[in-house]
Amino acid sequence: MTSPKGKIMLVGIGPGSHDHMTQRARAAIAEADVVVGYVTYIKLVADLLEGKEVVRKGMTEELDRAVHALASAREGKKVALISSGDAGVYGMAGPTYEVLFQAGWTPESDVQVEVVPGASAINACAALVGAPLTHDFCSISLSDLLTPWPVIARRLDAVAASDFVVALYNPKSGRRTQQIVQAQALFLRHRKPDTPVAVVKSAYRRRERIEFTTLDKMSDCDIGMLTTVLIGNSHTFVQHGLMVTPRGYANKYDLDDGGSTRAGERAGRSLSTGLLGWMENLRADHAEGISIAALAQQHKLPADYIEAVLNAPVEVEEAVASTEESEA
Amino acid sequence: MTSPKGKIMLVGIGPGSHDHMTQRARAAIAEADVVVGYVTYIKLVADLLEGKEVVRKGMTEELDRAVHALASAREGKKVALISSGDAGVYGMAGPTYEVLFQAGWTPESDVQVEVVPGASAINACAALVGAPLTHDFCSISLSDLLTPWPVIARRLDAVAASDFVVALYNPKSGRRTQQIVQAQALFLRHRKPDTPVAVVKSAYRRRERIEFTTLDKMSDCDIGMLTTVLIGNSHTFVQHGLMVTPRGYANKYDLDDGGSTRAGERAGRSLSTGLLGWMENLRADHAEGISIAALAQQHKLPADYIEAVLNAPVEVEEAVASTEESEA
Repeated sequence: MTSPKGKIMLVGIGPGSHDHMTQRARAAIAEADVVVGYVTYIKLVADLLEGKEVVRKGMTEELDRAVHALASAREGKKVALISSGDAGVYGMAGPTYEVLFQAGWTPESDVQVEVVPGASAINACAALVGAPLTHDFCSISLSDLLTPWPVIARRLDAVAASDFVVALYNPKSGRRTQQIVQAQALFLRHRKPDTPVAVVKSAYRRRERIEFTTLDKMSDCDIGMLTTVLIGNSHTFVQHGLMVTPRGYANKYDLDDGGSTRAGERAGRSLSTGLLGWMENLRADHAEGISIAALAQQHKLPADYIEAVLNAPVEVEEAVASTEESEA
Repeated sequence: MTSPKGKIMLVGIGPGSHDHMTQRARAAIAEADVVVGYVTYIKLVADLLEGKEVVRKGMTEELDRAVHALASAREGKKVALISSGDAGVYGMAGPTYEVLFQAGWTPESDVQVEVVPGASAINACAALVGAPLTHDFCSISLSDLLTPWPVIARRLDAVAASDFVVALYNPKSGRRTQQIVQAQALFLRHRKPDTPVAVVKSAYRRRERIEFTTLDKMSDCDIGMLTTVLIGNSHTFVQHGLMVTPRGYANKYDLDDGGSTRAGERAGRSLSTGLLGWMENLRADHAEGISIAALAQQHKLPADYIEAVLNAPVEVEEAVASTEESEA
């Protein structure tokens, strides 16, 4: 007789309201014999738990949750381990795989594992404030409970300097009050004091609260463990109560003039300052006598990278392989 | 007689399969009179479109889609403008607000706007490969059609150096073949050649394909416009065909020893190398005669930041405000 095969489903329930949960997340909870989660997240899905074994754990008990899930799954049960947002973003997917590997689990074993993706806090908060993530962005947790501060500080410094939109997770807690102040100081070394910032608490939950501020006032806001802080890039603006990061259409199109392309630009093609055009300009500037060091400074890129680009064979724009692969 | 109020719903449909669409996304499409989108995304929701006006647009026509949506909404229609993944992540939310503002729209006008968040490609791809996003991550588009290459290169360099997990969107197209080679070169300046990389095509769609590789071989993979590339950080590993980034429990807990805390660490508290502990060590090292320049080099942080930290008043760990606010 073979024992029934158990299953661990790592379920991202989205921001909190059922509307923003995926169908698979809902089905996974329905399918589960056991639901394990942080007590606050269990409350968010309370009406889906009738008849199930429910295991409520504290915030410091991530590894316990994974150990419990594995034990239940080895008994042949189906276990939903729930995370808010996406199970993979600072959620239970990581610690659970760590615990499983530690316990000698393999994908061929008697316990099946499925990660169910969801809309993360960054997506939910962005949707509520406008369209702040329309360009390159980063997510950084300010919690130093598992990560040394210099690692966090280096990341803050790097992304502030290179103009990412940045989401700060776990920005502050009862005990951790200075991390957000430090983050602000690191950002102010590179970004303007009036850089737009959105402070979003409990997105799509009962106590939802949105506050717009600026980088220089960020750390004075009401920020806690249920808050996500979104810091705009140098182009992000707030208009009519909406925070928007332009995608860059204005680099190519004259938006005031019915959308015609700017001089030197072509629709569906790289910008004149795109990779190949930029390389061409770089070679021309260098041929005219501008030094590698000066070019590195001008483009804010490492000198050895500039040198490698100058030494690379000259590329020409390749033909399109298929029509499916053309772009914006 | 007042005209009916129109509505634009910016809908993130998730990776592509209906299972991973949120209930609100599905309801928004059901509610819509008109559905506007890139032809490939329209196909993904074809079975939800019966009886609706469907407007299929090409990939270069984002602004057209927004203009069309606004015109229909001003006629009192409900319009769903669909994006794959999350509408806010390189999706239609940004360009639509830009077009709306340009047209003099305000939130008080006759057209209501709602952004419906969804699981982005990064969340979907991560779920399929394991748990690569469990620590700080970035999303960078390699498309230089709207963004100058030096901006993209600076971001690649910054996040490679500061050890983020990185997702590359739009890594390659028929015409753009060298951006991924350049990204690889920039990463190899900071990261080991054997850094794990996952190349995910068409996540949760019919032609889904997952390939694991390493940074030094990344640009040799089959990569196209429907591919997302995930580059691990210095701790990311691949085991049993799963890519996992540890959250950092091993910094605090002895995982081989039933999870007891390591010497000098306390559960639920900042690491001994967390902000306050690190500041204390920094002051002690400086008092012992280690220069600011040497400390800056040791911690890979700017000297003026180290100096500011040394000059800051000494903080002590504050009392917890409420039990809800304790952490991992």
